Amino acid sequence: MLKKENSLVFGGVNVLELVERYGTPLYVTDERKLRANFRGYKTAFETAETEIYYAVKANGNLAILRILASEGAGADVFSVGELQLTKLAGVPAEKVLFNGNSKSESDLRAAVEAGVKVSVDSVDELRALSRVASEEGEGREKDEEGREKDEEGREKDEVGQERGVEVAVRVNPDVSPEVHPKIATGLKTSKFGVPFYEAVSVCEEARRLPGISLAGIHCHIGSQILDVSVFREAAEKMLTLVAGLHERGIELKFVDLGGGLGISHRHEEGEVAPTPRDLAGAILPVFEKTNLKLILEPGRSLVGATTILLSRVNAVKRAYKNFVAIDAGFNLFMRPVLYDAYHEVVVANKVNERRGLGGSEGGSEGGSKGGSEGGSESEIYTVVGPVCESGDIIARDRRLPKVERGDLVAILDAGAYGFSMSSQYNGRPRCAEVLVCDGEADLTRSRESVEDLVRRQEIPARLL
Amino acid sequence: MLKKENSLVFGGVNVLELVERYGTPLYVTDERKLRANFRGYKTAFETAETEIYYAVKANGNLAILRILASEGAGADVFSVGELQLTKLAGVPAEKVLFNGNSKSESDLRAAVEAGVKVSVDSVDELRALSRVASEEGEGREKDEEGREKDEEGREKDEVGQERGVEVAVRVNPDVSPEVHPKIATGLKTSKFGVPFYEAVSVCEEARRLPGISLAGIHCHIGSQILDVSVFREAAEKMLTLVAGLHERGIELKFVDLGGGLGISHRHEEGEVAPTPRDLAGAILPVFEKTNLKLILEPGRSLVGATTILLSRVNAVKRAYKNFVAIDAGFNLFMRPVLYDAYHEVVVANKVNERRGLGGSEGGSEGGSKGGSEGGSESEIYTVVGPVCESGDIIARDRRLPKVERGDLVAILDAGAYGFSMSSQYNGRPRCAEVLVCDGEADLTRSRESVEDLVRRQEIPARLL
Repeated sequence: MLKKENSLVFGGVNVLELVERYGTPLYVTDERKLRANFRGYKTAFETAETEIYYAVKANGNLAILRILASEGAGADVFSVGELQLTKLAGVPAEKVLFNGNSKSESDLRAAVEAGVKVSVDSVDELRALSRVASEEGEGREKDEEGREKDEEGREKDEVGQERGVEVAVRVNPDVSPEVHPKIATGLKTSKFGVPFYEAVSVCEEARRLPGISLAGIHCHIGSQILDVSVFREAAEKMLTLVAGLHERGIELKFVDLGGGLGISHRHEEGEVAPTPRDLAGAILPVFEKTNLKLILEPGRSLVGATTILLSRVNAVKRAYKNFVAIDAGFNLFMRPVLYDAYHEVVVANKVNERRGLGGSEGGSEGGSKGGSEGGSESEIYTVVGPVCESGDIIARDRRLPKVERGDLVAILDAGAYGFSMSSQYNGRPRCAEVLVCDGEADLTRSRESVEDLVRRQEIPARLL
Repeated sequence: MLKKENSLVFGGVNVLELVERYGTPLYVTDERKLRANFRGYKTAFETAETEIYYAVKANGNLAILRILASEGAGADVFSVGELQLTKLAGVPAEKVLFNGNSKSESDLRAAVEAGVKVSVDSVDELRALSRVASEEGEGREKDEEGREKDEEGREKDEVGQERGVEVAVRVNPDVSPEVHPKIATGLKTSKFGVPFYEAVSVCEEARRLPGISLAGIHCHIGSQILDVSVFREAAEKMLTLVAGLHERGIELKFVDLGGGLGISHRHEEGEVAPTPRDLAGAILPVFEKTNLKLILEPGRSLVGATTILLSRVNAVKRAYKNFVAIDAGFNLFMRPVLYDAYHEVVVANKVNERRGLGGSEGGSEGGSKGGSEGGSESEIYTVVGPVCESGDIIARDRRLPKVERGDLVAILDAGAYGFSMSSQYNGRPRCAEVLVCDGEADLTRSRESVEDLVRRQEIPARLL
């Protein structure tokens, strides 16, 4: 039997209790940590008019969204589905930006109907949005003829003209952070945004087209960025564009600098990630002389470190390498195979046999009291998942206390792009999610069953 | 409006009709092609005692499984979920092998209860299976004392001893096909199987342990293999092991050589993949002098070329590259981002403006009549999906007829590791699947809705 006294405590709850109650694999999110991360942003940017729009794609758990909304977060959404999540979580529509490089007619319609801002990725889309918004506008006017219009009707500007859907033009600033190429979105060859040389022209067209109102410009330079100077570079580039627009008589309400602040994944090696305060130090001086609102879209830096993924050891195998086979693989956690991402792992029922999460912000109360570094029993293991692919490797060549079948492994800093990228690959139902806070645990997503693999399937009658 | 006369016909059905009826994105599978692929294996291996166990992970669509079962296929499953799919599709338990490198206690129990063969990946797992099988066996014996046992009770062998669960030992043959490292499963450093040097010892233990019966050895050397000589190498290596076991008085019933036969993804460049007949030519001579049953586990080579993924163009953007943004991204089709896989794409409503699927086995009836190679209107495009990641690129730098918003793109050879790896990433419900045959279309999986993103979610009451 696993020993409680040697086990990781997370959010005040012993992980053995969690897996007894909810099984494995299990995502566990620490509410206190989440609130602290958000407040870190609020404090760092309190001197400026800044809004924090959480990037929902990082983690679409409704409880997480709800907590962030209660702290004052807006949302960066990328689909009708994410828009719906923000509604359910109580994020106000005026603090939602609908992003995306490939929006269908019905996506645009949903955004217009919801009354959120839209970030426009191309001229094609700008024109489609103008059409959709104008049609919706006409629909509204027709409604007004017949019956009293509700209070949330469109605002009129000074000259009584309908303002329409607030639009930001997504521009590609051609800024190159040193990150994994799959997530460097600001390179000039990236699929996102209009080229910088076209930005003014597209903004001019946005101002002319009916049904919409140009309110801002938007960029996003990448993900998991550990050098904040590139944010400053992007901010400066965006403000040269603001100046260019000003010369043409175009004034904006906001600049959205996107997200991308990285987190530390290598606490044990002493890696330190920049904080929101560092980010503020890099970009606020650039905005000082403007009266523009700044919008930020952090994802990973809000949720990444709040969450661990607990998984059970099904087999330990001595082969050409020492393998630990756990019950969570890339079906539930794509980052190692997709981005070669490094995540620390701990044997969660043996944290006192070696230092646990100690010294990291990833944060266990129990771990930091942990014993000596690498006991005499420790070995080098490669931790693999259950997926039928040789690439299903969670962690390579890690020193861990001696692992046995039945042990628990915790994958750290798994809150961003964890569950949100999960699949049912290999016929595996997706796992449960739990929120922990001050020693209490609440289920926020129940475990799928085999039934969920076939819910929408049917065999045509002629084949039966 | 898109023109029907210029549109791709697939399985006898015009794709415009399909998207009108079912929307996009849409996976479409050609039943005739699927049956032909399976029969290709049956014919190629008819001279030997060979069983074809379809690798369910490639595509877990129940209608596909049902069709393959009706053709006589068994199944290679990797989880309780996949096992359940085979039951629902009518694959007989005696033709199912339960694979996997990380089986939980409950996985093993489910396999034993279902009466399927189990491929054992490690000594750890072998012992766990023996325990589980013995317990289940005792359960059965106790049942027998009290009441009449059902007819499906365990067979006894000649000496009246209970035979137990049929087991294959998965060995790692250290054979190196030249494929993408993520799918080269037979390298000695792969996570799968017991090392070759331990194989005899593990088989000996398998023979000794209660509750189980050693029936075969199993290997799998990789995926998307285009050079069949490595299969011969693996077969020879497995037969040296068979000989070594024979010397120790251990006789087997079968050798399972796994799957891995590749398909062509570059028809336009004249790439030709080996056929089941080529595979038979490589391995059957090796098996000639044995009386062993041969098991094969093809996945991609059965389903890959049977299916296209239809997607709608949401935007065309001239930037540093020409981008075509479609409504299917790596949420629905991971292969390009995960494996750098190449898939041909066609503008499915403009196949006669350029040659369509012509000349390829990927096969359209309409396309092969297509017009001239690259008309005056063609351009080079990069086809990207709607996912908020710069890596969400489906096809780079392809010459296509002039593309406009509203056009349809077909991604070819998308039947293997397509839907099965799909996720709801970016808040996108998963798409529908359709089976086409001789001009008829049947829905086999209905489109998810936004509701499916929140079905299992709940916000703890204290947060409301």
